[in-house]
Amino acid sequence: MNSDRHHGKQPPGEEPYWLYGMHPVRAALANPRRRIRRLLATRNAAQTLAESRRAEDAPGIEPEIVERKAIDRLVPPDAVHQGVALLVDPIADIHLDSLLEDEATRIVLVLDQVTDPHNVGAILRSAAAFGAAAVITTWRHSPPETAVLVKAAAGAFEAMPYIRIQNLAGLLEKLHEHDFLSIGLDAGGPVLMRDAPHGERTALVLGAEGKGLRHLTRELCGMLARLPISEQVESLNVSNAAAVALYELTREN
Amino acid sequence: MNSDRHHGKQPPGEEPYWLYGMHPVRAALANPRRRIRRLLATRNAAQTLAESRRAEDAPGIEPEIVERKAIDRLVPPDAVHQGVALLVDPIADIHLDSLLEDEATRIVLVLDQVTDPHNVGAILRSAAAFGAAAVITTWRHSPPETAVLVKAAAGAFEAMPYIRIQNLAGLLEKLHEHDFLSIGLDAGGPVLMRDAPHGERTALVLGAEGKGLRHLTRELCGMLARLPISEQVESLNVSNAAAVALYELTREN
Repeated sequence: MNSDRHHGKQPPGEEPYWLYGMHPVRAALANPRRRIRRLLATRNAAQTLAESRRAEDAPGIEPEIVERKAIDRLVPPDAVHQGVALLVDPIADIHLDSLLEDEATRIVLVLDQVTDPHNVGAILRSAAAFGAAAVITTWRHSPPETAVLVKAAAGAFEAMPYIRIQNLAGLLEKLHEHDFLSIGLDAGGPVLMRDAPHGERTALVLGAEGKGLRHLTRELCGMLARLPISEQVESLNVSNAAAVALYELTREN
Repeated sequence: MNSDRHHGKQPPGEEPYWLYGMHPVRAALANPRRRIRRLLATRNAAQTLAESRRAEDAPGIEPEIVERKAIDRLVPPDAVHQGVALLVDPIADIHLDSLLEDEATRIVLVLDQVTDPHNVGAILRSAAAFGAAAVITTWRHSPPETAVLVKAAAGAFEAMPYIRIQNLAGLLEKLHEHDFLSIGLDAGGPVLMRDAPHGERTALVLGAEGKGLRHLTRELCGMLARLPISEQVESLNVSNAAAVALYELTREN
């Protein structure tokens, strides 16, 4: 057995869950890596869905037509489900080592205890937008794969590997072995992000809202860099900071 | 009377509301523009607050010591209030015309129907971080001043004018009269944001999550620009897009 199998998306036996809303459901149906178990839809929603669905999107999965109320009962109160719900398995493991051995992998994001699923969802979306290869975080102190996270990622969850590992120190060591420069984003960083090396393999490391990077994480990063923000504010929202740093890293100079 | 008085933070008579959480309460106490009515705190929270409070922060306002339960009843269920709640009036009107006549005003953000308070809060924070002078939106289809919005802005709400106006067309016209170039952020924009003019007075215009700018708004903008994102994703989260565009606009080339 490969010792790295737990560096994946869920521990063995994690349960199927209900995705909802047109956009996440469409994206999941179009993802060949998704195992899909059931599709529920109101008559109207089934029609809307049929119009945009391609023949190769989850063939064999037909909607079970239900009343809106039936879906209300499956999703959180007030969730905007748009008449459609999809029972899926969490996305299967991505092997971290093979991702790092792939030369096309230039940028990865590392999250140090960022717990809010809306922020992590927005980060997955920006990671996909700016060509990062994965978002990596720890099993503990990170949001699990849920409908809220998938929805916040607005379709990007299906394309962007979200890898959860045991501990961050081991991860950073492994990244360094694979020639990644780890840049921790920190308000006290001595270097501006724009002056950090742009050409190399980069692991961008971001800390939690408010607390920032933990002391040990800060010590282990190859470099600490800051964004040029006004003294009026302590920090940016973590997903905004991630987007700006990714933009800077991929901006052609 | 000045016809522009309604271009402000609330319609006349808008009600006081409860802010909660250490950070928003501290920031509000330190803001001389805030009218404060009551401060409730648990014994522990009052002590924590006293340690960081300066003599000039809302002098005369002393905490009423209460049980945690009393605060639970004032705030939304599951709100993280940290034992402290502050009854405040909405921040008084900012006069849009005088803001635009001030030569120091170089950048304003204009929001076209961005309704989610978490996104607008993060945008207020990034606006303050990158030196914008105000965030302007319409009365309708925008979040009112509430504890959720103030909390999402993480302290920046007290410093960053949040101005709500009647209609966007009139606003854009007024901005153009004051020599602002309005740049609408749009995935189909012909120009990359980095190639848009950086030196002028700029109004950055952002549309709603998913829908983007409305047709009319798009027509009225002086220029449409896009961010360089992968075809894998349709768009960024709106607060992430705002942060990246502000960063680009203020980046020294």
